[in-house]
Amino acid sequence: MASAKKNTRKAKPKTKANSVFALRLPDQRRLDPAIKAVFAKCMEKLGFVPNVFRTYTLRPAKFEYFRKYNAELMLGESGLSKLEREMIAVVVSSVNHCHYCLIAHGAAVRVLSGNAELGDRLATNYRTAELSPRQRAMLDFTWKLSETPAATVEEDRAALRCAGFSDEDIFDIAEVAGFYAASNRLASAIGAEPNPEYYKMGRPS
Amino acid sequence: MASAKKNTRKAKPKTKANSVFALRLPDQRRLDPAIKAVFAKCMEKLGFVPNVFRTYTLRPAKFEYFRKYNAELMLGESGLSKLEREMIAVVVSSVNHCHYCLIAHGAAVRVLSGNAELGDRLATNYRTAELSPRQRAMLDFTWKLSETPAATVEEDRAALRCAGFSDEDIFDIAEVAGFYAASNRLASAIGAEPNPEYYKMGRPS
Amino acid sequence: MASAKKNTRKAKPKTKANSVFALRLPDQRRLDPAIKAVFAKCMEKLGFVPNVFRTYTLRPAKFEYFRKYNAELMLGESGLSKLEREMIAVVVSSVNHCHYCLIAHGAAVRVLSGNAELGDRLATNYRTAELSPRQRAMLDFTWKLSETPAATVEEDRAALRCAGFSDEDIFDIAEVAGFYAASNRLASAIGAEPNPEYYKMGRPS
Amino acid sequence: MASAKKNTRKAKPKTKANSVFALRLPDQRRLDPAIKAVFAKCMEKLGFVPNVFRTYTLRPAKFEYFRKYNAELMLGESGLSKLEREMIAVVVSSVNHCHYCLIAHGAAVRVLSGNAELGDRLATNYRTAELSPRQRAMLDFTWKLSETPAATVEEDRAALRCAGFSDEDIFDIAEVAGFYAASNRLASAIGAEPNPEYYKMGRPS
Amino acid sequence: MASAKKNTRKAKPKTKANSVFALRLPDQRRLDPAIKAVFAKCMEKLGFVPNVFRTYTLRPAKFEYFRKYNAELMLGESGLSKLEREMIAVVVSSVNHCHYCLIAHGAAVRVLSGNAELGDRLATNYRTAELSPRQRAMLDFTWKLSETPAATVEEDRAALRCAGFSDEDIFDIAEVAGFYAASNRLASAIGAEPNPEYYKMGRPS
Amino acid sequence: MASAKKNTRKAKPKTKANSVFALRLPDQRRLDPAIKAVFAKCMEKLGFVPNVFRTYTLRPAKFEYFRKYNAELMLGESGLSKLEREMIAVVVSSVNHCHYCLIAHGAAVRVLSGNAELGDRLATNYRTAELSPRQRAMLDFTWKLSETPAATVEEDRAALRCAGFSDEDIFDIAEVAGFYAASNRLASAIGAEPNPEYYKMGRPS
Repeated sequence: MASAKKNTRKAKPKTKANSVFALRLPDQRRLDPAIKAVFAKCMEKLGFVPNVFRTYTLRPAKFEYFRKYNAELMLGESGLSKLEREMIAVVVSSVNHCHYCLIAHGAAVRVLSGNAELGDRLATNYRTAELSPRQRAMLDFTWKLSETPAATVEEDRAALRCAGFSDEDIFDIAEVAGFYAASNRLASAIGAEPNPEYYKMGRPS
Repeated sequence: MASAKKNTRKAKPKTKANSVFALRLPDQRRLDPAIKAVFAKCMEKLGFVPNVFRTYTLRPAKFEYFRKYNAELMLGESGLSKLEREMIAVVVSSVNHCHYCLIAHGAAVRVLSGNAELGDRLATNYRTAELSPRQRAMLDFTWKLSETPAATVEEDRAALRCAGFSDEDIFDIAEVAGFYAASNRLASAIGAEPNPEYYKMGRPS
Repeated sequence: MASAKKNTRKAKPKTKANSVFALRLPDQRRLDPAIKAVFAKCMEKLGFVPNVFRTYTLRPAKFEYFRKYNAELMLGESGLSKLEREMIAVVVSSVNHCHYCLIAHGAAVRVLSGNAELGDRLATNYRTAELSPRQRAMLDFTWKLSETPAATVEEDRAALRCAGFSDEDIFDIAEVAGFYAASNRLASAIGAEPNPEYYKMGRPS
Repeated sequence: MASAKKNTRKAKPKTKANSVFALRLPDQRRLDPAIKAVFAKCMEKLGFVPNVFRTYTLRPAKFEYFRKYNAELMLGESGLSKLEREMIAVVVSSVNHCHYCLIAHGAAVRVLSGNAELGDRLATNYRTAELSPRQRAMLDFTWKLSETPAATVEEDRAALRCAGFSDEDIFDIAEVAGFYAASNRLASAIGAEPNPEYYKMGRPS
Repeated sequence: MASAKKNTRKAKPKTKANSVFALRLPDQRRLDPAIKAVFAKCMEKLGFVPNVFRTYTLRPAKFEYFRKYNAELMLGESGLSKLEREMIAVVVSSVNHCHYCLIAHGAAVRVLSGNAELGDRLATNYRTAELSPRQRAMLDFTWKLSETPAATVEEDRAALRCAGFSDEDIFDIAEVAGFYAASNRLASAIGAEPNPEYYKMGRPS
Repeated sequence: MASAKKNTRKAKPKTKANSVFALRLPDQRRLDPAIKAVFAKCMEKLGFVPNVFRTYTLRPAKFEYFRKYNAELMLGESGLSKLEREMIAVVVSSVNHCHYCLIAHGAAVRVLSGNAELGDRLATNYRTAELSPRQRAMLDFTWKLSETPAATVEEDRAALRCAGFSDEDIFDIAEVAGFYAASNRLASAIGAEPNPEYYKMGRPS
């Protein structure tokens, strides 16, 4: 009965929160085979397709370039650990109040660190977290670069070098922090919704 | 003789402005052949290698991914013209006071538009430029997204739709604006120096 | 062996994250009987004593006044539901990046709403949440009041009235939003640490 | 005759500046006896009832809690003098451009210090006042806590300790600064008008 | 004897609040005759020499140019009344928290308007003042121009025209608002101290 | 015939970019003889009349005062070179994104320094320029004074003294920085358009 009632009621504008993003999602059954293959791999490994990937079905020609650049930055060889790169992602997203990235990368910090609180601390205020001097220097640089990039001066790079970072590492910190400055803006602009799975991931049950 | 003289003079800290960036540049004679090939093509087409490419010789594994993603965004098929994408790049860089990007993409706007003033107006204050309603809406969205991404609401997307942009176009505006939020931060963090050629490019002599 | 080693190593400054706050906590065995009674009731009802209460053992004369004012605001009779008051608390704390309040009141929103995502959305960016026009108006007012209180004008109050709020309700929204402007500052100034129990509360297991 | 004229003219919205606040004030002849008693005491001691108290006649159940907490903070035992607490109130209100609190607490600073200029300096820019190192440290902390609470770090507390403040004092500075972060927002939100008496109080005639 | 004592005691940095400004004041007995004449006229008309004039004795060649430009702006023929120009001065100085200008021009508003409260309202938050639509539009424009000048758009000029201002008036609002953007910065940079006379001027005794 | 055509075509709002400013320009053939004389001199020396001068034809009584004060500040005797004063003008205008001033004074820096890049660096981000410690201190002070004038403290003046500046020089830095805070606001408020000649001036052809 309830469902019958539902069927007859006036169409309500599809709310953003029930969908992938605020733009029109193309028919997901007619995707490019290469994209379908990526999504199948996601299902196999994660159990779901990250919504940021779904949003790219609107612009399929760009998907591979985005995905590979993203993967290289976050998973490729670097003096920064994978956890450190995710920590940067969360702190940038905290500056920018980006819901999508805080939920998705907060989950990554929880999973990679095995420390559920750490994800929440970086999402709210990284200054409350117990960090090594190295990580504190890295996140201080990240915060400043996210808020006032043009104010970066040689002293800021020197602080990273003092904390033990090489020039390659400084490049990587900057590139990852920059990447999430971009992702935060893309996600906010298109109203991207994090997959529901992320909210609980890495939280002790 | 000159080199002997150099060897004896007191070491002066290499100034940033004479080099590619504030980090240590690897030996440019020993680059990866794939990178050498890209640089050769740049020399052929532009007469110089953009310094942002030179900076990636410090992180060669990431170069191809960055370069291809960048090329797809700026040169790939889109409802936005190449000039419009460069206009977005300049306005984002204006918000962020990014020297590298304002010089390099200001040049691109001058060349693509054949309007030298337009590049300077977008670099200083896009509100002073004579723009079509479409371009004005695009740049208003870009400015807000650059300054306060989390404040984006449905009304902002609606304003773009009113100005004639499709959902694909909105995605592209957001992705390009995001990309330069990233580039500005990378360039400022590593102290990237624009090639001297950019300053004059597209200016009437 | 490991523990023996630990016993002999040089005393490390007690990290904030292991304690109640960044100030010196008085001997918790010698508390005022009235405070002990409140704490006993907390243990009974919640299973723990909220750390904000513990911090007041440093200033016991003020505890009752703080606690009763707080209780009246959040639990007393009002045209705002308890959940709505907690929603305001979280949004104010989001503006101020207050770790303590986001964790403690994020938990309250999750518990009272039975909607785990809602707490996270309000903590990151309330604009991403599906809200009734009433709640949207309430939180828009809250955000502006938290960021730029002096910019409040009659139009802002009119928007609340349009959304159905009475003058008493407007007073309550303002007083609750103000209270958390205060709590955020107290918590950040004294380095208050949220109880570990809050992180999981109201999250589906 | 005048009143008859008034009755026929078109109702003009009661201007805020002629009343207690921008909300509807309840009938002041029918107040709760406990509130009447407080107001009678104010009349006896001050010659007027502070308008912030009048505003609470709209929410009488909260009045006693607010009033007692306020009194304890500003008049109770503390390592901070009453003047110092009023100085904090004025500096917070300066950050927030709060008319009510600058007028009311500016008056308190003038009266308590016997220094009419001091009240005006703290209201405009506390950095222009001749302050002891202790008071300068206290107000530097207050300003930062008011503007960017989440940026508080251990170094900020250390600066207060260096200036001679105990942990109890740090708590009190933070709580008073927080209280006026709240009062400023309440006053601005409800359009509270300072009593005319405050403007002249403590000014040499 | 007193002076002998002075000569031997350890030099204490002259405090700013006891002097005209934070820079070294030249010997006031050896001033240029033209400046002496101006000062004599001030003594005659005001009973004191405004400290901003005293500061210019450090740069006597510039004094006449500054003084005449200032006089023309504030006292010359204009569609804006003298009071309105002073109102702009105070609101600009409120944005910039300029102690010197708030005290000196607050006094001017009190004297010219015969309304002591008005000066204080404009100094703390002009939005709390009862203003005509014309004055409200003028001060809204002033506030925005002071905070974010580059955000000025045609709509802002249109709002002034709607409120009845001519193009000449718009020019005058802008020039006066600009002049105090300058004065605020000069006064803050050199630590200019307002004359004690200003604090009481125009206040009912 | 052309004029007849003009009379019948639909009135198009005169675009700002084709004119001197966004306000109505008076008939330039009926100017005051003194103004005509100044303009004739400009034509002789520069080949054009700076548009900021043209805008003052709307308020001719103020022109001489403005022009002479401006000339004294920028060309009069000072411990700051003319180039240094123009450098300050550009950095202030960079903070304020003022199109007119960045174009006109960017040209002045290029011409006076014979260094085309320097003008562009100061316009985008002065921190990227190779500056002497003296000039770096001068521009750091300028930037801070432009952004947050009330935050100026004795340490800021001390930094200028350490860099070799006298009290007279500090006054001049502050006054020039203030003057462009004013000019930026006037130019933005009235929509002043830089003369086309400025864009190319001082650029190598």
